[in-house]
Amino acid sequence: MASLDFAISSTQTRLLQLRTLMAEQALDGYLVLAADEHLNEYLPQVKQRRTWLSGFTGSSGDFLVGTGKSWLFVDSRYYEQADLEVDADWVAVSKLEREGHKTMVETLEILALEAGRFRLGFDPHTLAIDTYRSLLKRLRPVRVELVACEGNLVDQVRLECGETVIVPTETPIFTVPVARTGQSVPDKLAAVREAMVKANAEVLPITKLDQVAWLFNLRGWDVPYNPVFIAYAIVTTDAAYLFTALERVDAQIREALAEVTVLPYAEYAQTLQSLSSEQARVLIDIQRTTVGTFRLLGKACVVEVQSPVEKLKAHKNATELAQMQLANLKASRAKVRTLQWLDERLQAGVRLSELDVARKVEGFYQEELDCQGLSFNTIAAAGANTSIVHYGTPSAEVFLESGSLLLLDSGAQYLGGTTDDTRTVSIGVPTAEQILHYTEVLKAHINCALQRFPQGTTGAQLDGITRSSLWLAGLDYGHGTGHGVGAFLNVHEGPAGLNKRALEPLVPGMVTSIEPGYYRPGWGGIRIENLYIVREIEAGPTPWYGFEPLTYIPFDRRLIDPSRLEPRQQQWLAHYYRVLLTKLVPLLDSVEEHWLRAACNLAS
Amino acid sequence: MASLDFAISSTQTRLLQLRTLMAEQALDGYLVLAADEHLNEYLPQVKQRRTWLSGFTGSSGDFLVGTGKSWLFVDSRYYEQADLEVDADWVAVSKLEREGHKTMVETLEILALEAGRFRLGFDPHTLAIDTYRSLLKRLRPVRVELVACEGNLVDQVRLECGETVIVPTETPIFTVPVARTGQSVPDKLAAVREAMVKANAEVLPITKLDQVAWLFNLRGWDVPYNPVFIAYAIVTTDAAYLFTALERVDAQIREALAEVTVLPYAEYAQTLQSLSSEQARVLIDIQRTTVGTFRLLGKACVVEVQSPVEKLKAHKNATELAQMQLANLKASRAKVRTLQWLDERLQAGVRLSELDVARKVEGFYQEELDCQGLSFNTIAAAGANTSIVHYGTPSAEVFLESGSLLLLDSGAQYLGGTTDDTRTVSIGVPTAEQILHYTEVLKAHINCALQRFPQGTTGAQLDGITRSSLWLAGLDYGHGTGHGVGAFLNVHEGPAGLNKRALEPLVPGMVTSIEPGYYRPGWGGIRIENLYIVREIEAGPTPWYGFEPLTYIPFDRRLIDPSRLEPRQQQWLAHYYRVLLTKLVPLLDSVEEHWLRAACNLAS
Repeated sequence: MASLDFAISSTQTRLLQLRTLMAEQALDGYLVLAADEHLNEYLPQVKQRRTWLSGFTGSSGDFLVGTGKSWLFVDSRYYEQADLEVDADWVAVSKLEREGHKTMVETLEILALEAGRFRLGFDPHTLAIDTYRSLLKRLRPVRVELVACEGNLVDQVRLECGETVIVPTETPIFTVPVARTGQSVPDKLAAVREAMVKANAEVLPITKLDQVAWLFNLRGWDVPYNPVFIAYAIVTTDAAYLFTALERVDAQIREALAEVTVLPYAEYAQTLQSLSSEQARVLIDIQRTTVGTFRLLGKACVVEVQSPVEKLKAHKNATELAQMQLANLKASRAKVRTLQWLDERLQAGVRLSELDVARKVEGFYQEELDCQGLSFNTIAAAGANTSIVHYGTPSAEVFLESGSLLLLDSGAQYLGGTTDDTRTVSIGVPTAEQILHYTEVLKAHINCALQRFPQGTTGAQLDGITRSSLWLAGLDYGHGTGHGVGAFLNVHEGPAGLNKRALEPLVPGMVTSIEPGYYRPGWGGIRIENLYIVREIEAGPTPWYGFEPLTYIPFDRRLIDPSRLEPRQQQWLAHYYRVLLTKLVPLLDSVEEHWLRAACNLAS
Repeated sequence: MASLDFAISSTQTRLLQLRTLMAEQALDGYLVLAADEHLNEYLPQVKQRRTWLSGFTGSSGDFLVGTGKSWLFVDSRYYEQADLEVDADWVAVSKLEREGHKTMVETLEILALEAGRFRLGFDPHTLAIDTYRSLLKRLRPVRVELVACEGNLVDQVRLECGETVIVPTETPIFTVPVARTGQSVPDKLAAVREAMVKANAEVLPITKLDQVAWLFNLRGWDVPYNPVFIAYAIVTTDAAYLFTALERVDAQIREALAEVTVLPYAEYAQTLQSLSSEQARVLIDIQRTTVGTFRLLGKACVVEVQSPVEKLKAHKNATELAQMQLANLKASRAKVRTLQWLDERLQAGVRLSELDVARKVEGFYQEELDCQGLSFNTIAAAGANTSIVHYGTPSAEVFLESGSLLLLDSGAQYLGGTTDDTRTVSIGVPTAEQILHYTEVLKAHINCALQRFPQGTTGAQLDGITRSSLWLAGLDYGHGTGHGVGAFLNVHEGPAGLNKRALEPLVPGMVTSIEPGYYRPGWGGIRIENLYIVREIEAGPTPWYGFEPLTYIPFDRRLIDPSRLEPRQQQWLAHYYRVLLTKLVPLLDSVEEHWLRAACNLAS
């Protein structure tokens, strides 16, 4: 109870201080976005302004502070978590797409209609241009004025509270050799410039940290889970700039970046301003660039297209794909070992908590060569917690109970490759309903994994294909079907995705997750996730593509009703297990091998 | 040959005259869009500027005239047709999405790079705002200047050639009673105003003719196939204006439009200008409004959202759905009669042409009560012509040959309802490959038709679901899976569609086609199309939807391999045939009934 009291009072106090600052600028509201200056999903601790203010730790969800009330807007992944984390006396949780719940724009509309007008402050350095424009379009008619505020107001409150707002630079940044990235910095710059010429652009400012890291073959640990470092970059037709803390750029890095001008982080703004003459054509990716950057361009001609870096990074080369295969095989072995350990302990009657499971898989990840840490916070959810899609706080007090499910969604970073996979397993004897639903989720997964599709196919089409059989069984899940994954980079990366609004076509060399699920609060949840490479399987005027697995972990045979699988699903599964055994058996000891062979035997 | 010579010389002459006008305005190019002032798909004859100039009769495809060359840009539906219709000496056909073929923007980019700059003229009254913006965004960086020209240059050439450019107003416009539309004009206006208030808009200009016709329960025949008439409308919070040829507005119409101010067509511009004060909030649907209208708004506050009329029109009420059922049952009977007649004649050894088939089905449509004409030009394609997706010129000289296919895509307008369906049938004994491919297309059709899906499902997801089994068989089709259909309105209507980029969610009351296919130039083509109503099949916090057929016509049993159908597909088909017989048998004579029962008997 003590910690809960503390949470209440800190949210209350901080909101009061923020409202004092809002009053000074005559603001009726202030927008605290989930993102930071680099539009990160995972933020440096000091940039987690929304979490610091609201208490909510989810990876997305914006926070609107009014003069009297405040609202947190979350999607279905976070419905339960938001309720648990925020102080309901001070923060209203708005559950997007749920009946009777309002979006941020709808909430602002009502506030503005009540008041006649509304001044909404925001930090232009934390808002993407496209989000700003769609807000502007919808808010202007309802007389909500968007006020770009100098300096971040939450930072001011933090400073008043005696906290720092500067990202620490003690941890080093480091180079990744071409043996792991497959392409040197000069070659990457040449490819970017070729795309810039095609788009008729001469200047390309880069905001996203994974783009900077990819382009310069550099990594760092400024944010949790993403191996990136705080920096901006600018590429022009004949120069390249990296803006970051100079003290972290050692001789080795300077040598690898011979053609690159390295400048202090703070000089990004004035450099971009001076490059943005009236004649300059500046390439701006409005989804991946902030309003703050846009305002530096003056009268330059803005070429609004997707950043070529985003596409080049997603289309992985042969070396990157080999590194991804290596990393995901390590992660697969780690999870196989975890599942074997779990079976053994449970059979021995040992009582295990969520935290025990999380620590175990993390330990196995760490044992593999070149492990650099986790790729996201391990989700080890037991029983009712399995229905919280992004449950990220495994507990030492929640135990694996017989008859329930365990959902283990985890991943690691290895030098060269990133991993992400989910297995749901039965604790004790599964119920008929658990088997039924698990089998349906597995069928959905396999239907996507075995699909062949022509060039130009969008993520929305593949999302529908994945859900079709689930829908026929009356089931669905509230999140997307899949996301891109970086090569020793972010576990979520653009530009492609598998979801109902994803229009980016899939192309060979992309890596995506396939992760259908089923969740029912109270009852529990199921998710089955592998990573896959998009491969060309047939050349021709219209090439055909398919998915090649990166993840090799058995599915829980106790939860599969093989009679409900169609022949082509059974064939896929049999082939997957054949390849799995070929790849993993040589890497396991005899006890592990025995467990794995049994786990892959659907016949017995 | 004589007519071909004439075609060559007319394209050549007209292009020369246009280039003279272009030179007067120092234009390097002129854009002749497929659309007219109302962004129609089917145009009044005098507005078919692109066809008049290029010779190409397809329903979409823009035409770019340069100083030396000219380019026609067509999608895969029109690859073959365009080659057949245009004069290759004067017009280059660019096949979009085909390897090595360039889009209009890419072509302009090259021209501008060669010349250093490029002035591209266009008529702002024939270009939608969103198309203009995306052109602007891509053309500005390559120094293509978009020049809005006063007066349409093609119209000037037409006038010089002694042709008229005024849409004739001899045909009447007429009211559709509430018994058929289900909603009076005052009630429709009230619904539109409610949506306008919600969007915080006070003025709504309406460009699209089907929106005007729907709103005022009026119809006319100014364009082929679409029962609409040339008009603009404006709705404000307390007034409504209809701008059209006054001589066509008789006493009965005036009575039905008691609350509506009817003004001459030419007064639209000045009325909108005077309503667009600086304080006014004007609702603009950028997909369905021209740049010409946008330029009339001055300093008014523009609320950019989808027009509420578009959504209200698509969400059909119970009366409209009943009318659609009635109309489609008539059309189904007409097609059943056509297919029975076809079988009978072929068995009797009669030689039939494409035109014979087209005339026959059109005759049967005409025999049904309240027929108002066709809903599009009948596609009766035989043999190799079946692979031309929009083959719209059935020939008296192309005969139905044994071993080939006939593709019959046709529809009619009845007072109250619009129809559209396609059947592909075997002439003589089908080949194994015809059976294989037909069965796959049928499976794709059924997979979509039987799908249940939750609220929020997009057309792109359903498109993927339809293609999944075809893709697994290595087949695909180059057009969308389905389109909205109006109630005694346009056979193609927004806002929803089933295709890989369709993000509009499907909602109950919408009518959509499902029409997968397979085409191989030389070999032939298959398409199977029904219309369906989107129905809610399960209420709840997340409602579930499904498709209810409007079309009841048997599929060609000779082309179906029942052993390749999955059990749920067989069940769907059996149920479809049970309902079909219940609905149609009472409407047929005994010969027809005998044919139909045999056609629906898959067992024998």
